[in-house]
Amino acid sequence: MGVGDVSKRILLGRKLRSSQLGETLLPKRIALPVFASDALSSVAYAPDEVFIMLSLAGASAYVWSWKVALAVAVVMAVVLASYRQTVHAYPSGGGDYEVAKVNLGDTAGTTVASALLVDYVLTVAVSISAGSQYAAAALPFLSGHEATFGVVLVVVLMAINLRGIRESGAVFAVPTYLFMISIGTMVVVGALRWLGGTLPRAESADLTIIPEQGLDGPLTTIGLLFLLARAFSSGCAALTGVEAVSNGVPAFQRPKSKNAATTLALLGLIAISMMISVIVLAREIGVRLVDPADFDRLYRAGAPVPDDYDQHTAISQIAEAVFQGFPPGFYLTVTVTGVILVLAANTAFNGFPVLGSILARDGFAPRALGSRGDRLAYSNGIVALALMAIVLIWAFDAEVTRLIQLYIVGVFVSFNLSQLGMIRHWTRELREEKDPARRHTIYRSRVINTVGLALTAVVLVIIVVTKFLAGAWITILAMGFFFVVMRAIRTHYDRVGAELAADEEDKVLPTRVHAIVLVSKLHKPTLRALAFAKATRPNALEGVYVATDAASTSALMEEWDERRIDLPLKVLHSPYRELVRPVVDYANEIRRANPRGVVAVYIPEYVVGHWWEQLLHNQTALRLKGRLLFCPGVMVISVPYQLRSSEAARERAYDDDTRVRPGDLRRGQVRDR
Amino acid sequence: MGVGDVSKRILLGRKLRSSQLGETLLPKRIALPVFASDALSSVAYAPDEVFIMLSLAGASAYVWSWKVALAVAVVMAVVLASYRQTVHAYPSGGGDYEVAKVNLGDTAGTTVASALLVDYVLTVAVSISAGSQYAAAALPFLSGHEATFGVVLVVVLMAINLRGIRESGAVFAVPTYLFMISIGTMVVVGALRWLGGTLPRAESADLTIIPEQGLDGPLTTIGLLFLLARAFSSGCAALTGVEAVSNGVPAFQRPKSKNAATTLALLGLIAISMMISVIVLAREIGVRLVDPADFDRLYRAGAPVPDDYDQHTAISQIAEAVFQGFPPGFYLTVTVTGVILVLAANTAFNGFPVLGSILARDGFAPRALGSRGDRLAYSNGIVALALMAIVLIWAFDAEVTRLIQLYIVGVFVSFNLSQLGMIRHWTRELREEKDPARRHTIYRSRVINTVGLALTAVVLVIIVVTKFLAGAWITILAMGFFFVVMRAIRTHYDRVGAELAADEEDKVLPTRVHAIVLVSKLHKPTLRALAFAKATRPNALEGVYVATDAASTSALMEEWDERRIDLPLKVLHSPYRELVRPVVDYANEIRRANPRGVVAVYIPEYVVGHWWEQLLHNQTALRLKGRLLFCPGVMVISVPYQLRSSEAARERAYDDDTRVRPGDLRRGQVRDR
Repeated sequence: MGVGDVSKRILLGRKLRSSQLGETLLPKRIALPVFASDALSSVAYAPDEVFIMLSLAGASAYVWSWKVALAVAVVMAVVLASYRQTVHAYPSGGGDYEVAKVNLGDTAGTTVASALLVDYVLTVAVSISAGSQYAAAALPFLSGHEATFGVVLVVVLMAINLRGIRESGAVFAVPTYLFMISIGTMVVVGALRWLGGTLPRAESADLTIIPEQGLDGPLTTIGLLFLLARAFSSGCAALTGVEAVSNGVPAFQRPKSKNAATTLALLGLIAISMMISVIVLAREIGVRLVDPADFDRLYRAGAPVPDDYDQHTAISQIAEAVFQGFPPGFYLTVTVTGVILVLAANTAFNGFPVLGSILARDGFAPRALGSRGDRLAYSNGIVALALMAIVLIWAFDAEVTRLIQLYIVGVFVSFNLSQLGMIRHWTRELREEKDPARRHTIYRSRVINTVGLALTAVVLVIIVVTKFLAGAWITILAMGFFFVVMRAIRTHYDRVGAELAADEEDKVLPTRVHAIVLVSKLHKPTLRALAFAKATRPNALEGVYVATDAASTSALMEEWDERRIDLPLKVLHSPYRELVRPVVDYANEIRRANPRGVVAVYIPEYVVGHWWEQLLHNQTALRLKGRLLFCPGVMVISVPYQLRSSEAARERAYDDDTRVRPGDLRRGQVRDR
Repeated sequence: MGVGDVSKRILLGRKLRSSQLGETLLPKRIALPVFASDALSSVAYAPDEVFIMLSLAGASAYVWSWKVALAVAVVMAVVLASYRQTVHAYPSGGGDYEVAKVNLGDTAGTTVASALLVDYVLTVAVSISAGSQYAAAALPFLSGHEATFGVVLVVVLMAINLRGIRESGAVFAVPTYLFMISIGTMVVVGALRWLGGTLPRAESADLTIIPEQGLDGPLTTIGLLFLLARAFSSGCAALTGVEAVSNGVPAFQRPKSKNAATTLALLGLIAISMMISVIVLAREIGVRLVDPADFDRLYRAGAPVPDDYDQHTAISQIAEAVFQGFPPGFYLTVTVTGVILVLAANTAFNGFPVLGSILARDGFAPRALGSRGDRLAYSNGIVALALMAIVLIWAFDAEVTRLIQLYIVGVFVSFNLSQLGMIRHWTRELREEKDPARRHTIYRSRVINTVGLALTAVVLVIIVVTKFLAGAWITILAMGFFFVVMRAIRTHYDRVGAELAADEEDKVLPTRVHAIVLVSKLHKPTLRALAFAKATRPNALEGVYVATDAASTSALMEEWDERRIDLPLKVLHSPYRELVRPVVDYANEIRRANPRGVVAVYIPEYVVGHWWEQLLHNQTALRLKGRLLFCPGVMVISVPYQLRSSEAARERAYDDDTRVRPGDLRRGQVRDR
């Protein structure tokens, strides 16, 4: 059995399996880690941002920390409740984009899509930056090189995704559950030691924070409110990633929507309790955090800390304190936190192609993104995503605090539009629904979404007000850019569609077929093309040769006679050694002589296996095909001749077809090889 | 009359003219500047290199300068005499490459070709570096930025040649004659002022050169010989560019060979007298030059010159002295020298594609280089040439003295092989020639070439010995690289040729044609493809649709019925949204069912006008075509549908066809628009 046969066997084998798709869907215990890693990972940086913002008014403002945490928790609970409505109403996995588009129209849909695209970039940038900070906490030699390390991580993720790695449940399940367990253990041990009075102080507990100018006196009410608003909006970073579940509904086991809703509830419970515990514990052990740009406000024993002061994240400091005397506990906690942040970044690489294919289906992105097979389109998307993330990490020096300012706008823009869309959705349902029990449920859902909209709208305003100058303007600009590009693509497709719409005269048959076979030499490919052309029995058939010098022309003509090829050979003279133009001109000439006929141009091509062989062959054929396509009434027929080396390329193409594409898992397209 | 008609009219108009090619050939007075600019421009740097080498033993060694110049002049005279033989024997313009290949075989031919390729790169690097030095002499603010300025010049030349500029006789004639006139005037005025005793001293005349260690005492005979050998081999840079005439014979007016030979003689006379005059005058006014790396050996009034000492070339210093009190004379001389150096560099951009097309014809370079039309192939070549030159200019900081070490090896390798080839040529001629008068001429020619070989062989040995470590090894390495690549390409073509050679069974006709038309939507392109496919009356014909979701599938099937398309529609299910694989598999299936038939796959394509539109369309069609070509017994038929925007692309393609290609002039392909 040849290699080709084996390939075919495998291929057919798989074909049978394709109707049994449900079999490979994710149970809740696997779906939770797959879709929740992004949302849970924000516990690794959101608490820090609350403390950093509060620190502007000195460590005394930390008394507000648990209240801010509570506010964030309330918003999160409401948002998750809203998404539970979404997964029931829109189980197709279109998520916020679909909700906004269906209920509010294309403009809202593309706005959400722009926000999501920007979010994917920022998810990579923020998660990887936070991950580098954890790595630096565990591996001191990385301190000060966080940006470089982050860039390396992004490049590695990019390479893995280009290569085509299977996003597997196991890869997510182990670290995500380990993360939950280690944070849980840390919190429980911390609480016990606290109750027992043996909880050590944080490494930064003896630091003094000098409040920022203007915030150093007793605060005015407005000043305090603004400070809390800033802390709150930074804390809202904890909400990023919750929409992932609504995009992943197709990957859940049946009943899909119910399982997804349960997973969402679980996710909310875990995320909220983690966040509040971390903030309370951090305050208890006296963690002191400031913006890395403001280390000059940090004093130890009356003197400012050195310039190379190494600030560790809240979770690192808690783990360090709680597991004092048991270093493995510290290292495990920090390591799994770092791993889960990298997984969260990888989530973006998988979510991006899924969104791309949905946008392509609606005509807002190049259509090639819509089919699973287009490796090139995926590759370009993955490289673009990685490059944008690298630019951000580099420009912001991997400082999470500065990147966070850009992050949350997009998330809340899509929250808002999606809530608004859901309200419309329920209102429309109400119009048609008669069953009182069902109407009651719909009413309840609409109330939930209305509360969600009210709350997220307030938060969005707070975020824009507090963060616009700090970086949110960049996000808004980027969203505008994506929005304009998507609209332009759609306009183009619409215009082309109108131009292509069929009418009755399109069915007219050409009256005759005049076939010409391009001859460069009399070798196997040419003879095959002549044979194929003959087999189609055209009304007229001739060989065409472009003569650039007399010697080879007469040699060819002699061979033509010798081989008794019973067809006329037309010789086109080309004193300037041009090959393309004479053929194009001749085809046009034939067509002019018979405007209702069609000219069939047969081009013998040999198929080679390597890109460098491709450079050495068929360049002229390629150019000629490109040019002939512009001639009306001409069809271009490639007659391939497979050289032995082409076998290698065929196998590569087969491998490529069967290769895993990023986002497969999220679309419920998990297959075994 | 539409734009298309106008195009056609112009096109046909030109076609008539193509037999009157001779009309546009170059008279001697234009051919001299076109082909001699490269050789003459070396007068702008070769004398300097002689002085710089001699300066190793201090300014006292300058007494040898005119003797070295004389030696170089002798070599040049002999080489030019040899080339006069070549243009008579090989008037086709293949030059050294053809001589070596025909008489000594492929290995010698590719060796010469490698040497010439390296030479083109070095011509650009050296000429532009020298040109920047002249620019710095005239424009003091460029001093110290020669490398940057040189890189900018190369980029500009590259852009001009990519854009497609006509190498015109006038562009060469004016500056080249101006160069001859200004150097001539400078020499005459200088000689008169010298005789009158009013010749000023050079600006560097009061400098003292400390000899290099080891050369500061009285020289041993061997030491002196080695010093003179080094000066001589650097001076041989004056010989670069003389082979250009032998490559340009086809562009001369009839009698081509005779005119070319006369031009060569003239070129020799002018170059030799210029070089000797410049060296004598430079010594007379006391020019002091050292390697820019050795400024610490240069003393003024007992103290070393400052680090930023600005050393001007010999011609600048002579012009400055000779035209003292008449600045326009100085500026004109320096400017035209700079201009002619840039023209010499441009020569390489024109010579490179010509060599490429000759190599392509012989199978040593990608075949696409062989046809004039391939803009892409030319563009890549031009960009590669420019990049390599930029790397050299940058790496050697635009220092001519260091670049010269790399330059001359390649030139003399091709001189040697070409002389050897000519000797073989004459020997073979002698074997067949009976006429005594003609035999006498052949004998004389053979003697000339033998003397030439002997001399150039000695020079080559001197060059390799004196320059190997100074940089010639880089050249030899680069030549080896080009050699290996060319041989590999040839081997590949030979192997493919053997695999493609036709035998008798290749004439067997396929028994039946099974046509399938790919349907994505029922729009104009699809209907056209269906009509074209029907017109070819295949044995079986069906539409094929890849179904990725149920809704659009049933919509299409409904429309198929509504439009009364009386063909079967085959629906291929693709649950994973793959488009390419199902079609490929189906085509293979048909073929398996009927191994002696052929499958004709019709692909409707719409043709758009801009690259960004191309990104939005046909990506799948393109990928599908690529994949189908690997299936034996399948032919792929593109049925184009021209969208309105494609008109723009058609016009661009036409412009591109008529655009001038670099090297056109050298091949005698001068056309008026």
